[in-house]
Amino acid sequence: MNDTLQTLYNHVSIRQYTDQPVAEETLQQILRAACSGSTMGNMQLFSIIVTQDNEMKKKMAPFHFNQPMATQAPLILTFCADFHRFNRYCEFRQAETEAYSNLQSYHWAVTDALIAAQNACVAAESLGLGFCWLGTITYNVDKFVEVLELPRHVVPVACITMGYPAVRPALTQKLPVEAMVHRETYHDYDETSINHIYEEKEASEETRQILEENQLENLAQVFTQRRYTKKDNEYFAEVLTNVIKKQGF
Amino acid sequence: MNDTLQTLYNHVSIRQYTDQPVAEETLQQILRAACSGSTMGNMQLFSIIVTQDNEMKKKMAPFHFNQPMATQAPLILTFCADFHRFNRYCEFRQAETEAYSNLQSYHWAVTDALIAAQNACVAAESLGLGFCWLGTITYNVDKFVEVLELPRHVVPVACITMGYPAVRPALTQKLPVEAMVHRETYHDYDETSINHIYEEKEASEETRQILEENQLENLAQVFTQRRYTKKDNEYFAEVLTNVIKKQGF
Repeated sequence: MNDTLQTLYNHVSIRQYTDQPVAEETLQQILRAACSGSTMGNMQLFSIIVTQDNEMKKKMAPFHFNQPMATQAPLILTFCADFHRFNRYCEFRQAETEAYSNLQSYHWAVTDALIAAQNACVAAESLGLGFCWLGTITYNVDKFVEVLELPRHVVPVACITMGYPAVRPALTQKLPVEAMVHRETYHDYDETSINHIYEEKEASEETRQILEENQLENLAQVFTQRRYTKKDNEYFAEVLTNVIKKQGF
Repeated sequence: MNDTLQTLYNHVSIRQYTDQPVAEETLQQILRAACSGSTMGNMQLFSIIVTQDNEMKKKMAPFHFNQPMATQAPLILTFCADFHRFNRYCEFRQAETEAYSNLQSYHWAVTDALIAAQNACVAAESLGLGFCWLGTITYNVDKFVEVLELPRHVVPVACITMGYPAVRPALTQKLPVEAMVHRETYHDYDETSINHIYEEKEASEETRQILEENQLENLAQVFTQRRYTKKDNEYFAEVLTNVIKKQGF
């Protein structure tokens, strides 16, 4: 197995970091990797906001629901779907500037931003850093647009804390690979196949602890009744929908 | 520089492949990498459709606008945002099944699918394969839903051709890294900074050829007048918007 596969297979989210700062040279290596990925028509429809200043971390923290890593991580990278820079280019070259104010174009920029984000993550892990994605970025997306001073046609889509691991947890219990893979066409899941693919995960110690903490019967209920409820999701969906529109897509 | 950084930095899209098939063992390594990435709440909200059958490639080709690589590549991986499997799990565990029928949840699944896709790409390159993303997947997304037999709550978001490179082109001319990077807050672009970041790209031989072929003054016009016109983008935006809704988000 080559080193890259080893890095990919051994990924685990790191939520606690040592005090060691991320050197500028290391940051540059991560940023270069982020900017080396595939992008739609080579348009590079993304931007990366680097957060290292403690004041900025404190400003953003409430919108990340004050998760400790949002202030404790030495480095935060926020990846934005960005058609603004390209539109500016069009503006200064006498080309149409409203060709990309639609949801298809938004999707291209989201894809570019997420390819860049995952490249940054892989690079970081290869350099001994750990990271964790903060899903909260698309919840309170209106607040992040404000705090990061994002212009029209820029929407933050991924936020990643990075630093040197203080604690390295065991690999997360995931579904078996074949659960996600379909040959030629989609095969649907029935009760038997769902039971089969969730079997190991449901039997794990991790799951037992989660159920005990939540006093619920199974993982599905932990998600729908506690972690990500219909009411919350619908509220944050409205926020996100409004921001995408307001930002011009 | 470690091997992983070298793989990431040297990425170039491969559009022509040798006849060498992708061995099942190699495919399994790529799929395992895809399934090892971060996912929202460890829900694994994605599916991968593996296309190796020539009949399936031919069926999909017109919706990829008959790009040669859509039939010539030995392997095509289509990554889908997938809340169907998780909803099925909820259904069989007496949990709410309509908690995730909204755009916020769609965004989580898109993110999971794209992380998986980029991990697959990095793994493939580390193994000597080449790949190319087909942007057409989100254009004719309605057709792909049909051909791949995707149920409600499943939307294809990335499609990647893979195989062994027949030709290895030079690295693509990209904007300098600092063009995409903002420290603490977004810095806007004025005419001077746009000129500066596009300078090398506009001066390249690649650009000269593109302008000659298109008989246009600059790259911005090539994009807005030829490659991705407002009219086309708006048409495909409507298709995509309708599919996202029809698929239950």
